[in-house]
Amino acid sequence: MTGEKKKCVERAQLAMMLEVTAFPKPGNVDRCHDFKDTTLEHFLASVILVRPALEKAREPGARVGEVILDAVVRTNVHSGGNTHFGAFILLVPLVMGRDIPGAVTVVHATTVDDAVSFYRAFGMTQVRVLSTDELDINDPEAADILKSRNMTLYDVMEHSAGNDMVAREWAKGFAATRKGADLLQQHGNGRKSIVTTFLELLASDPDTFVAKKHGAGVAGRIQQMAQEVCSGTRDITEFDQECIDSGVNPGSTADIMIASIYVALGEGWQWD
Amino acid sequence: MTGEKKKCVERAQLAMMLEVTAFPKPGNVDRCHDFKDTTLEHFLASVILVRPALEKAREPGARVGEVILDAVVRTNVHSGGNTHFGAFILLVPLVMGRDIPGAVTVVHATTVDDAVSFYRAFGMTQVRVLSTDELDINDPEAADILKSRNMTLYDVMEHSAGNDMVAREWAKGFAATRKGADLLQQHGNGRKSIVTTFLELLASDPDTFVAKKHGAGVAGRIQQMAQEVCSGTRDITEFDQECIDSGVNPGSTADIMIASIYVALGEGWQWD
Repeated sequence: MTGEKKKCVERAQLAMMLEVTAFPKPGNVDRCHDFKDTTLEHFLASVILVRPALEKAREPGARVGEVILDAVVRTNVHSGGNTHFGAFILLVPLVMGRDIPGAVTVVHATTVDDAVSFYRAFGMTQVRVLSTDELDINDPEAADILKSRNMTLYDVMEHSAGNDMVAREWAKGFAATRKGADLLQQHGNGRKSIVTTFLELLASDPDTFVAKKHGAGVAGRIQQMAQEVCSGTRDITEFDQECIDSGVNPGSTADIMIASIYVALGEGWQWD
Repeated sequence: MTGEKKKCVERAQLAMMLEVTAFPKPGNVDRCHDFKDTTLEHFLASVILVRPALEKAREPGARVGEVILDAVVRTNVHSGGNTHFGAFILLVPLVMGRDIPGAVTVVHATTVDDAVSFYRAFGMTQVRVLSTDELDINDPEAADILKSRNMTLYDVMEHSAGNDMVAREWAKGFAATRKGADLLQQHGNGRKSIVTTFLELLASDPDTFVAKKHGAGVAGRIQQMAQEVCSGTRDITEFDQECIDSGVNPGSTADIMIASIYVALGEGWQWD
């Protein structure tokens, strides 16, 4: 593995590690909180175990769908269930393309085979939420439909962009990822900037994982509470507790946060 | 990399991750506490970055000293200073030999070149404590002396075994590592067994890192307090706070704990 390859892979792993350990991070697993069935250690085990998949992403001829599938297979070995599915959707093209412009090229070059591999990967996760959309990226049975319609993985993401902020990153040139990376630079080096940036991303857009699980109303309320924390009128610890008490975890914002850390690290932002 | 190789490498990384996240762990960095200059993230970054060195440990012809040096070089890139030097001294032969019997063969086959590489590695760390022993493994200038005396790395460890419990593992067939692995199995699966085992190891032998830094009296007092926690007459949180307040960190016991987790994981103990 060349130095450049290794750098992208380790940067992705560091981004995953830094996101999950950052605290306090309202509603999500962090240094202070576990979920009932998924702990900090499950997330960190995934960070370790995903490495060979990310290394494959840097090999010539790597396919996005296959790498995402490989990442899920490798990290699906502990009892913590899915930890990073959304993050892999962003990190795999970013590692393949090295940076955002490269990732944009990568996602536009995806094929129907990538989409099929992606749905196989999805079928292995436990990210299942109700949806009325036959092509929702959260519905594993959509694979047959997309084959018959000759849809690439990019097409799938574009189709889902309206109600899924991770898919939207593919469709909109990684705009939120870019924004998060800029915010990290703006807030300066050090792990504290991760928490501040996370809150600002949460305040900017309703988290679509929360929306799918609890409805648009709850997602909007969470967004508003994040805005209040950012403006200093609400305490972050209280916000965190409220999220925990109501089972709300802004998981898609965390996925974008990981992508933002990856990008920022590549642009000289330092975590320590 | 074959499946067997990958298994040993990832097991070592999981052991490092599980040790540092276990809490409450009196005096050491854990999920609840950072040191002033070394944080949980520094330890976890080292867990990620060491992987290529551990992969080299599984290649034919790998040399213990070179792999330890490579591990230190790779993890010496953040501002947290040394995180796992003692752990590498145990993990490298364990990964090379796969298990304790294999590691015993590996350490007995070390050469003078291994010793020289080891001292180069040591020179890069910040583990410096006063010593009156000219060959103390904590003195980088000892390299010339051991060359002139034709001492292998095993000889160095045997020489240091009296006042260094990590070196003692080499000289005594990884006895404490074995004991820790047995205790983990005895306490059952799950991360809580790590804390219980850590305390029992600390209660069994005075931590030599504490002894070198604070004297035998303090090391003995820490051992006694650990015994009191084990017997239920002292609260673990209070013990933790006392260690933190007096700057006492039982780092060598943590190194052995990592080796014990590695061994236990290979024997079917499950962390989750």
